[in-house]
Amino acid sequence: MSVSVLPVRGTKDFLPQEMIVRDYVQNVILQTYQAHGFKHIQTPIMESIERLSKSEGGENLSLIFKILKRGEKLQLNQPNLTENDLVDSGLRYDLTMPLSRFFANNRMALPTPFKCIQIGQSFRAERPQKGRLREFYQCDVDILGDSSVASEIELIDTVTHTLLNLGFSGFTVRVNDRRLLTRQIEQAGFASADVPSVCMTFDKQDKIGAEGVRAELLEKGFKPDVVEAFMGSVMKDMSVLPNADDEVVQRLKQVIDVAQRLAGDKFQVVFDKSLVRGMGYYTGIVFEIHSAQYATALGGGGRYDNMIGQYCGEQVPAVGFSIGFERICDLLLEKGFTPPKVQKYTVLVYAPEDNLTDVFVKAAELRKQGYTVALCAKSKKLGKQLDVYAQEGYTSFISFADGTEKPLGKRD
Amino acid sequence: MSVSVLPVRGTKDFLPQEMIVRDYVQNVILQTYQAHGFKHIQTPIMESIERLSKSEGGENLSLIFKILKRGEKLQLNQPNLTENDLVDSGLRYDLTMPLSRFFANNRMALPTPFKCIQIGQSFRAERPQKGRLREFYQCDVDILGDSSVASEIELIDTVTHTLLNLGFSGFTVRVNDRRLLTRQIEQAGFASADVPSVCMTFDKQDKIGAEGVRAELLEKGFKPDVVEAFMGSVMKDMSVLPNADDEVVQRLKQVIDVAQRLAGDKFQVVFDKSLVRGMGYYTGIVFEIHSAQYATALGGGGRYDNMIGQYCGEQVPAVGFSIGFERICDLLLEKGFTPPKVQKYTVLVYAPEDNLTDVFVKAAELRKQGYTVALCAKSKKLGKQLDVYAQEGYTSFISFADGTEKPLGKRD
Repeated sequence: MSVSVLPVRGTKDFLPQEMIVRDYVQNVILQTYQAHGFKHIQTPIMESIERLSKSEGGENLSLIFKILKRGEKLQLNQPNLTENDLVDSGLRYDLTMPLSRFFANNRMALPTPFKCIQIGQSFRAERPQKGRLREFYQCDVDILGDSSVASEIELIDTVTHTLLNLGFSGFTVRVNDRRLLTRQIEQAGFASADVPSVCMTFDKQDKIGAEGVRAELLEKGFKPDVVEAFMGSVMKDMSVLPNADDEVVQRLKQVIDVAQRLAGDKFQVVFDKSLVRGMGYYTGIVFEIHSAQYATALGGGGRYDNMIGQYCGEQVPAVGFSIGFERICDLLLEKGFTPPKVQKYTVLVYAPEDNLTDVFVKAAELRKQGYTVALCAKSKKLGKQLDVYAQEGYTSFISFADGTEKPLGKRD
Repeated sequence: MSVSVLPVRGTKDFLPQEMIVRDYVQNVILQTYQAHGFKHIQTPIMESIERLSKSEGGENLSLIFKILKRGEKLQLNQPNLTENDLVDSGLRYDLTMPLSRFFANNRMALPTPFKCIQIGQSFRAERPQKGRLREFYQCDVDILGDSSVASEIELIDTVTHTLLNLGFSGFTVRVNDRRLLTRQIEQAGFASADVPSVCMTFDKQDKIGAEGVRAELLEKGFKPDVVEAFMGSVMKDMSVLPNADDEVVQRLKQVIDVAQRLAGDKFQVVFDKSLVRGMGYYTGIVFEIHSAQYATALGGGGRYDNMIGQYCGEQVPAVGFSIGFERICDLLLEKGFTPPKVQKYTVLVYAPEDNLTDVFVKAAELRKQGYTVALCAKSKKLGKQLDVYAQEGYTSFISFADGTEKPLGKRD
């Protein structure tokens, strides 16, 4: 029997040396989030196909892995069979839709505001490419039921502390408000209905430049004078917060001001009008953390006040932040990061003639003393056996026969 | 819009108080396994439908969640459409099949023997019932590439230490060898081909009793004299290890003998001829840990020397143990277990007029001192707010205005 042994397309096996970094990153994230008073919850990776389809996932809706109905519910012999006849659930594409459902389902058991952590896999059937997996972990913090500006600040504070604890610094927190951008686009003369389309083009300016933005807007058929008004207003002064006295601008100012003071000289917090962020459900402030050193985003989020209401029938304000777990692990692995070791690592070497009971008793004693102990049955090539342990980070070995601990030199 | 907010049938939302126990149990398991020298790996939850279908999962094969093909590969307009035309992958039903594939795929990067840990979800579309979820966590340890008896002992040693670290004791490790049972069934006069069917009936003796076993075997059409020979040999002396001088019995003796000495007075290790264990892939020693106190199995496993060869083309001996993560969490939650706290928990209460920057700076200082700090914006019902924190395990509160720490009484 010959079956492929590669993982399913777009997914990945993680080797022990990768898992050491992934476990470390996940622990730092969970512990930092928890030290900030957030509580860990867990939702199933499957959601009903109805909920997934009706959610505001934008283009993610076309990337859902759908699950076949089972047993009698699966009817293949019907005319005009459609996909919807065949499936009853799917794998979640993010953690926000499941959180909204979770909150509505368990509301009576949860405090207000509810500050929570979710760590788990999401799934998107994207075209596989480097650094983008079809099964990937997300680490989210959310505050539900609090409309105050303290929530935005608390999320920025929590996530930046997490990144600092992971050894990152010098990053930039970019902050914007979706309402501000919408208003400026409308003031240039675009109709409300056209705002999403204009935003989509605007969001490409990193790649296509100002001229590209102008060309694409004209190509989309917008009036030249409106496009010019847009180029002269929205496309100018990307980092200058408008000098207006309304609630939107004042709130943005306060978030940026407090976050800047908390940042000190460890990272920057800036207003960035060009920050759009794709998800359709954001309703107010959005943020993203960018690392110039690694030329990549390390996380992002924003306020989504209208989503949870769809599940529990009344408006519940919400703001969330998702850290780029897979990207952070990739960056740390690329630079050869190894987590600090808290344990001593030793190899207990025994021979065929040794008493097995005594060997296991000795290992248990060493573990009680704080050692990680690997048991190694001595072969003729003991040197090569020990080399492998040395490469894995073990620092000493103990021969059961004589009981003395000897250093394990890295000989690679 | 009115959409159900219940989780998908047979799956479950986990609340913060449940996650505290789940995280604790998972950490103890991972840390104990790692202290024993096992290495953490991770495999995708999706596997190709071909591999799943060809695997030796027994009745689990009928419980697979299958994933619909996407894009052009999904052709609904074909005659005589079958399930196989529609799906390309599925959710794994255990961690052993993915491990075998992982080992074959990454063999060059792995040491021999390879001692590894897998912690993750498996999925089975079983009829939902209490204590049985369709998405559930498994925590496996396996030793690949070592046929020696030390492997069986090392797994029993590792898993029993894990259970002791979780506060369980007085459990019983039941040990058997599939080959011994097979041989005794054949010696009673059954044909080799009938062994699995006889085993299935034999496995029910807990429920149907000896008379039920006899009746079912006769009903299945086996010869009365063979059934009587079976009743007089296999169905007798369930806890007496046969006095034979062959390799199978000697190995069993050694495993039980060493494990009994390691157990001391903390748990029991016994031979149990009635231990069958369902999975078809076991080839030698099988074990199961049973708690009389909770009347349930806490984990089980065995040797499966023929499975990995199906993926890497040469025989690789293997032995594995899976701990009953969900059951252990349920038992701890039922008895109101709370994990030991290593952090101090305080609530930092601030008022609308307080300077937000200073509040966050104060919180960061407290966290540096080892506190978990929840930020609480003071409302008119501060007493009720604090009650909620007290119920969640916070032990003090600090009013930002005066800075002194006061105890938080449990008032529930």
